[in-house]
Amino acid sequence: MSMCGNCTTCQSADKVLEGFIGSMNMETSHHRVENQKIKCGFGQQGVCCRLCANGPCRITPKSPRGVCGANADTIVARNFLRSVSSGAACYLHVIENTALNLKSIGETNGTIKGVNALNRVAEIFNIEEEDMHKKAVLVAEKVLSDIYKPRYEKMELVEKMAYKPRVENWKKLNIMPGGAKAEVFDAVVKTSTNLSSDPVDMLLHCLNLGISTGLYGLTLTNLLNDVMLGEPVIRPAKVGFKVVDTDYINIMITGHQHSTISHLQDVLNDEKMVEKAKKAGAKGFKLVGCTCVGQDLQLRGEHYKEIFSGHAGNNFTSEALIATGGVDIIVSEFNCTLPGIEPIVDEFMVKMICLDDVAKKANAEYIQYSFENREEISSYIIDEAVKSYTSRRDKITMNIPKDHGYDDVITGVSEQSLKNFLGGTWEPLVDLIASGKIKGVAGVVGCSNLTAKGHDIFTVELTKELIKRDIIVLSAGCSSGGLENVGLMSPAAAELAGENLKEVCKSLGIPPVLNFGPCLAIGRLELVATELAEFLGIDIPQLPLVLSAPQWLEEQALADGAFGLALGLPLHLAIPPFITGSKVVTKVLTEDLETLTGGKLILEDDVIKAADKLEEIVVNKRQELGLKL
Amino acid sequence: MSMCGNCTTCQSADKVLEGFIGSMNMETSHHRVENQKIKCGFGQQGVCCRLCANGPCRITPKSPRGVCGANADTIVARNFLRSVSSGAACYLHVIENTALNLKSIGETNGTIKGVNALNRVAEIFNIEEEDMHKKAVLVAEKVLSDIYKPRYEKMELVEKMAYKPRVENWKKLNIMPGGAKAEVFDAVVKTSTNLSSDPVDMLLHCLNLGISTGLYGLTLTNLLNDVMLGEPVIRPAKVGFKVVDTDYINIMITGHQHSTISHLQDVLNDEKMVEKAKKAGAKGFKLVGCTCVGQDLQLRGEHYKEIFSGHAGNNFTSEALIATGGVDIIVSEFNCTLPGIEPIVDEFMVKMICLDDVAKKANAEYIQYSFENREEISSYIIDEAVKSYTSRRDKITMNIPKDHGYDDVITGVSEQSLKNFLGGTWEPLVDLIASGKIKGVAGVVGCSNLTAKGHDIFTVELTKELIKRDIIVLSAGCSSGGLENVGLMSPAAAELAGENLKEVCKSLGIPPVLNFGPCLAIGRLELVATELAEFLGIDIPQLPLVLSAPQWLEEQALADGAFGLALGLPLHLAIPPFITGSKVVTKVLTEDLETLTGGKLILEDDVIKAADKLEEIVVNKRQELGLKL
Repeated sequence: MSMCGNCTTCQSADKVLEGFIGSMNMETSHHRVENQKIKCGFGQQGVCCRLCANGPCRITPKSPRGVCGANADTIVARNFLRSVSSGAACYLHVIENTALNLKSIGETNGTIKGVNALNRVAEIFNIEEEDMHKKAVLVAEKVLSDIYKPRYEKMELVEKMAYKPRVENWKKLNIMPGGAKAEVFDAVVKTSTNLSSDPVDMLLHCLNLGISTGLYGLTLTNLLNDVMLGEPVIRPAKVGFKVVDTDYINIMITGHQHSTISHLQDVLNDEKMVEKAKKAGAKGFKLVGCTCVGQDLQLRGEHYKEIFSGHAGNNFTSEALIATGGVDIIVSEFNCTLPGIEPIVDEFMVKMICLDDVAKKANAEYIQYSFENREEISSYIIDEAVKSYTSRRDKITMNIPKDHGYDDVITGVSEQSLKNFLGGTWEPLVDLIASGKIKGVAGVVGCSNLTAKGHDIFTVELTKELIKRDIIVLSAGCSSGGLENVGLMSPAAAELAGENLKEVCKSLGIPPVLNFGPCLAIGRLELVATELAEFLGIDIPQLPLVLSAPQWLEEQALADGAFGLALGLPLHLAIPPFITGSKVVTKVLTEDLETLTGGKLILEDDVIKAADKLEEIVVNKRQELGLKL
Repeated sequence: MSMCGNCTTCQSADKVLEGFIGSMNMETSHHRVENQKIKCGFGQQGVCCRLCANGPCRITPKSPRGVCGANADTIVARNFLRSVSSGAACYLHVIENTALNLKSIGETNGTIKGVNALNRVAEIFNIEEEDMHKKAVLVAEKVLSDIYKPRYEKMELVEKMAYKPRVENWKKLNIMPGGAKAEVFDAVVKTSTNLSSDPVDMLLHCLNLGISTGLYGLTLTNLLNDVMLGEPVIRPAKVGFKVVDTDYINIMITGHQHSTISHLQDVLNDEKMVEKAKKAGAKGFKLVGCTCVGQDLQLRGEHYKEIFSGHAGNNFTSEALIATGGVDIIVSEFNCTLPGIEPIVDEFMVKMICLDDVAKKANAEYIQYSFENREEISSYIIDEAVKSYTSRRDKITMNIPKDHGYDDVITGVSEQSLKNFLGGTWEPLVDLIASGKIKGVAGVVGCSNLTAKGHDIFTVELTKELIKRDIIVLSAGCSSGGLENVGLMSPAAAELAGENLKEVCKSLGIPPVLNFGPCLAIGRLELVATELAEFLGIDIPQLPLVLSAPQWLEEQALADGAFGLALGLPLHLAIPPFITGSKVVTKVLTEDLETLTGGKLILEDDVIKAADKLEEIVVNKRQELGLKL
């Protein structure tokens, strides 16, 4: 192993984690921020083009066009659309596999854990079918058929799922998506050498991809997972490194395709399997949550109490989690599986298995997941877990900071469980908003990154600032992993809220920051927004609702963001995407868009100013609705 | 307009063009090479990553990993696969539209100009059907069905089209493609943030995409176009600016989706339409060829004698062509339509219409092409052409260098017309090779760029060097546009060949460089290779055949190249793709690949050394086959 070359780490909102990483003698992403701190200005502004052998070209005042003649607007829009399309592709890959798994479950008369969820989805899709398994197949087929349509055929479910006023808006803008995969495909074509040079067309294409991402990649993935894995139930849970119990063989899961590991999850508790663990000297198996699949396990924890030990942390906690020594094997089925874990995995003798080749790690074993072979695959993973446990435990020093995390994080919040909690109607929430007890709603969502002030720092500070102003925060994504690990999702956090919101939280016994789970659940937040708008008979942009993905990290976040913008919501980012080199792109996204969809991008790297801007929007929307100020 | 800010232009192999561009008072790509000459070393080596908000990151000896932990091998492979997948996407977009047009022609009982071609394709596909129109539909549907398959279903036509020993090799390497569009899609996913980190898996995926690109994007596009547009017939033709006849209303076509403009092409000659032109004071309409669609028009010129005035030049000739003043309207249906033409088009008052939104130019009118509306679209374009002609001709100064080009370029060479020329069998060619009259065959193909010594310079010099060594050169792509504009495809060029090849050329009346047309026709070269191997009963890598894409430009060229490598052919490039920052990627492509497919990448920026290396391979292959040395 290489010793840590540079022991300056970035700050984290999670001080225990920061201390732990600072004490590690291996390099992590937190260390590498320092080495990579000098950023390429061309790349940051998006004015670098690497599409052809005449390049790379860079736009400067003295060279305002690349060799081919592309100017900053074209280059920035091309780079941005390519990023958004890649992000959309990732989420669409996830919904495709999710739908395939649901179809297989239906075809093999497998277990349907969320019958109500299935009925709800089938109703949205206008599917009438008594048999639950046939119904599951029909639902899955509708999804698959839509995403595989050619670009010149519009997808059917968009009109069924999206809020009517939005559909009208999208039709007017000509951004109703054709087959989602084909839209991604043609976006990639469009951004290729000497093809599109039209920034506005490319930005509209981003919105089109945002719609597919939001409705299929996010919302439907949640709903189909609810069918297969059970619906979220609100409950308190443990988070942080303290969830690691070394008496068990610990399987760390990373990814976003939860249904891929659902068979494994179901059999881990089988007597025969537990016997294997016991023979090796352990009490049994535990799944340790990490990244979004961990958030999703946490969300549905009610159904996996025996097996799921809890969520340890988000993407940039994973290197440290492995370095505690407590993880015996890693099963990865998608991102965010940082390449940075590779040397740490080797050092700590942790076996790594990847189940989807799109997420194949260089030093991992790859097993192609298929539903038909799920039993063999689960059995193989379990055997490898035992093997790894047996061979590593006496050679590895455990170092698990048991003071890391919380015991009482409120989890399991979904559009459905929240409504149930409110008594089956949004009315109580609407009343609280109308009366000003809750000033507004902010979705603080998306990834965690290390560069907006440090690990989760902007997310945490902004959230604190918003709740202080009586704006309730809903979170989904790695952001929620960060927020729960600093206590903001525990009921005691009510003390940090403004007087009005504090009162609400205390009376309901909830924290001022609600945990919807994985980034996929951004789709759930948007269902909440839609249902609230529907309840009030207004369009989504009229709601006193704002979005912030302060510490967005990945191209996927940009595709999510495009959905938010298509929904007509204001979206704040602390770090701009790589667009600032183009006046046209920046102006369209931060200004003109408001006249198109009602949404707009807000770029603000100061926490207080960001909170000011978001609060101002909330207040303005309240005023426009004639609500108490 | 902005006056030319920097009047240093890059050199061109085409000295008349170079002089013309040097005298222009507008900026072209040839001027911008100077302003963009300082290249980013990180970009060139492929070690810059812009996938997330923690970046951009750059790999240096002091910072060997990005923040996420990705090392140079991962970053380079990711960037490279994303480029190859984008290039493959472009060609697959072309075959998709081509197949859709064929299907529509079949369904509407349209004109089938290449009945023999249709029969040949149907036979390859095992389609038995008497009715030619139904047969066309069935052929088109087979293609569409394959490219829309999910990734987990292998495409059917690969085994039908590819040479058996190759199929075996590809199966062994597990690179037989599933649905082509889905393979592209998942490659995009694979190269996203925190997904694959495995360089070898990503390089194998490049080969998989190369197969789809080659068999579908290239080969099938040619074959289906042969059905719709007529088969190539060998004939002499005019090339260069001299093809522009100002007595006519001149329509410049750019793109790769030839069948999209075939209706326009057919009606331009209608009496009614010609009448419109005459009323405006012109003799009629002419299509002026430029970029690959011009090469394709030239290839099939036998069928469009009245309408096609000839091929003016390749991608980097297009700015100058417009600046001659002779072009009245531009119809673009794909790349390579340089953004650099936009200000020139404005200055010369040239209307620009784009028929495919993936290729929408910022200042062009966009009309969505659809087969059903083809009559209206053609009619609209014709009216706009007349309007543009009428409004611009008295305001524009014409400056057409009539000394530019050649009158006797041999065109219309295809795998079929060449075999016919040889008497319906490859035997005469094989005999010439066996006897050493022809030492070997080199495909000098692909784009034109401005950075490998200048515009077409490396291509022309390498070609001269190869023919001097009795290696016959076959060309397809913008390279052939460059080669014909300097006379190498005229019979007189035989004088530049070595003694043996000169004798062959003179006795057959052919030039030493054969013009297969557009880059799509690289697929035809590869058909020739397959048929030669089949004739000899050997595998493709055993042939004394080498490929060079000396002046590759676009991501599409990389996808083409991946096909060449999958076929097991040596492929030379003068400018490396952005891979040199990774030892693993460079080694796999330039060395290890030879043990996998038989192919390998040869990076050589010196003309003589490149010719030496290619000749050495040819000689070695001759030796291995026991041919005369």
